[in-house]
Amino acid sequence: MEIYKNIQEMKSYLKEMRKEGKKIGFVPTMGYLHEGHLSLIRRAAVENDLVVVSIFVNPRQFGPGEDFERYPRNIEQDIRLSQEAGANVLFIPGINEMYPEGFNTYVEVKQLTETLCGKSRPGHFLGVTTVVNKLFHIVNPDRAYFGQKDAQQVIVIQRMVKDLNMDVEVVVCPIVREADGLAMSSRNVYLNSEERGQAIVLFHALNMAKERIEQGERDAMRLKKQIEMMIQQQPLANIDYVSIVDGENLEEVKEINHKVLIALAVKFGTTRLIDNMIVEV
Amino acid sequence: MEIYKNIQEMKSYLKEMRKEGKKIGFVPTMGYLHEGHLSLIRRAAVENDLVVVSIFVNPRQFGPGEDFERYPRNIEQDIRLSQEAGANVLFIPGINEMYPEGFNTYVEVKQLTETLCGKSRPGHFLGVTTVVNKLFHIVNPDRAYFGQKDAQQVIVIQRMVKDLNMDVEVVVCPIVREADGLAMSSRNVYLNSEERGQAIVLFHALNMAKERIEQGERDAMRLKKQIEMMIQQQPLANIDYVSIVDGENLEEVKEINHKVLIALAVKFGTTRLIDNMIVEV
Repeated sequence: MEIYKNIQEMKSYLKEMRKEGKKIGFVPTMGYLHEGHLSLIRRAAVENDLVVVSIFVNPRQFGPGEDFERYPRNIEQDIRLSQEAGANVLFIPGINEMYPEGFNTYVEVKQLTETLCGKSRPGHFLGVTTVVNKLFHIVNPDRAYFGQKDAQQVIVIQRMVKDLNMDVEVVVCPIVREADGLAMSSRNVYLNSEERGQAIVLFHALNMAKERIEQGERDAMRLKKQIEMMIQQQPLANIDYVSIVDGENLEEVKEINHKVLIALAVKFGTTRLIDNMIVEV
Repeated sequence: MEIYKNIQEMKSYLKEMRKEGKKIGFVPTMGYLHEGHLSLIRRAAVENDLVVVSIFVNPRQFGPGEDFERYPRNIEQDIRLSQEAGANVLFIPGINEMYPEGFNTYVEVKQLTETLCGKSRPGHFLGVTTVVNKLFHIVNPDRAYFGQKDAQQVIVIQRMVKDLNMDVEVVVCPIVREADGLAMSSRNVYLNSEERGQAIVLFHALNMAKERIEQGERDAMRLKKQIEMMIQQQPLANIDYVSIVDGENLEEVKEINHKVLIALAVKFGTTRLIDNMIVEV
């Protein structure tokens, strides 16, 4: 497996690969890979000739007081796991390589970023779109793979790609869950056993909501209340938001009469977890 | 000459050209082409296999109350002139093609855009960087040509390209002037004969400043005052700004001891003209 830390060298290598006619699949990550990431890499390996995985804990998508410093890292394990999953190239740039002195350009998607996680984490999506824009220019992939777990991120990046006429197909892959249903996340490692036990309520609440809709529930406000009540029965759960929004424009819905996204963010102790489910009516 | 109005068709055509190994030169314009634009097209024709010229009066780089509506247009003449200068492809998208419903993504360069024209025209450079970013993705050129006349624009676009790791060489071409020294501009057509006569003071003032520096003047504030006094002797001149700044970071200098940019914006009647000169010490 090839490993690059330098942007210019990464670009030159991939330019050669493209000249040889290779289709490039790209999986941008912040490392500490879990089965969710690996599912993206495996799919990219099936659909492309060459799979590039980036590992970069992007400081600019963490707000002040967030967990940038303690975000889990294990580069040796990441190298092994990504290779086993089918990655051919790792791109692991340093912070100064990505944001050299004088750096001053930002890519911003408005509106879609002002709700859900964007509301709780101001500046988060500005960091995401800026770094993904840079990575897309560095890797220049035919396809880029993202997990549905970060539902808002997916919609924001699709918007950026469309609006800026970028030449990359954004492929969205299903949420991968632990055996008991907790959505895989690098942050799950923060949870102590009590928090871990209670965190499963998120998946249960989403399933309950889906069933209610299938049974005919159309009142978003009432359903939202039910989700919140179920989560609040876990004493360590601290709700950031529970939202039922339009699956395309992320605007809050009153009546559930088309494809909706049920999205939530809940803190257990100091650990903020997100999860979501798309329900088609 | 090929003419495209549709983004997808423009992309497909240029993709084919690149496959054939053609190097692409790109000249983005707002049309109403003059000798300044044509000098860019001619140079692009020398340095590349295929020259693409875009003509798009970008509403998003005009502020409220600015001259978007009355900005001069003459598409037939532009087609003829650009072809004569060596353009092979014209890209002339409509506003809805560039900014369809739901468009919500912006590319912003900070700091460098907060001074000079950025101060007088809030939002102007946000419009410029966003549209140039889009055009770069649509055309995907090897080289893009800009005029030194828009000195701040050049520096801002170079910053964007570098920061976002875009694969395009930005080529800056000298200011083209009328016989008497007035910098070519599509907006010169707005000037009545009295304004046109007085506008030549801008070039004279820049030359005077350059001579003073060559004679040993190092005090930026004093020199700035002299430029302003010279311009103000023209009764129709209304100074927006006169600035002596660092040629790289656009920060105001006190002592002229390295490469400086003398930049100015002056209104004659309702017409705002800009001009500049780089002076190396």
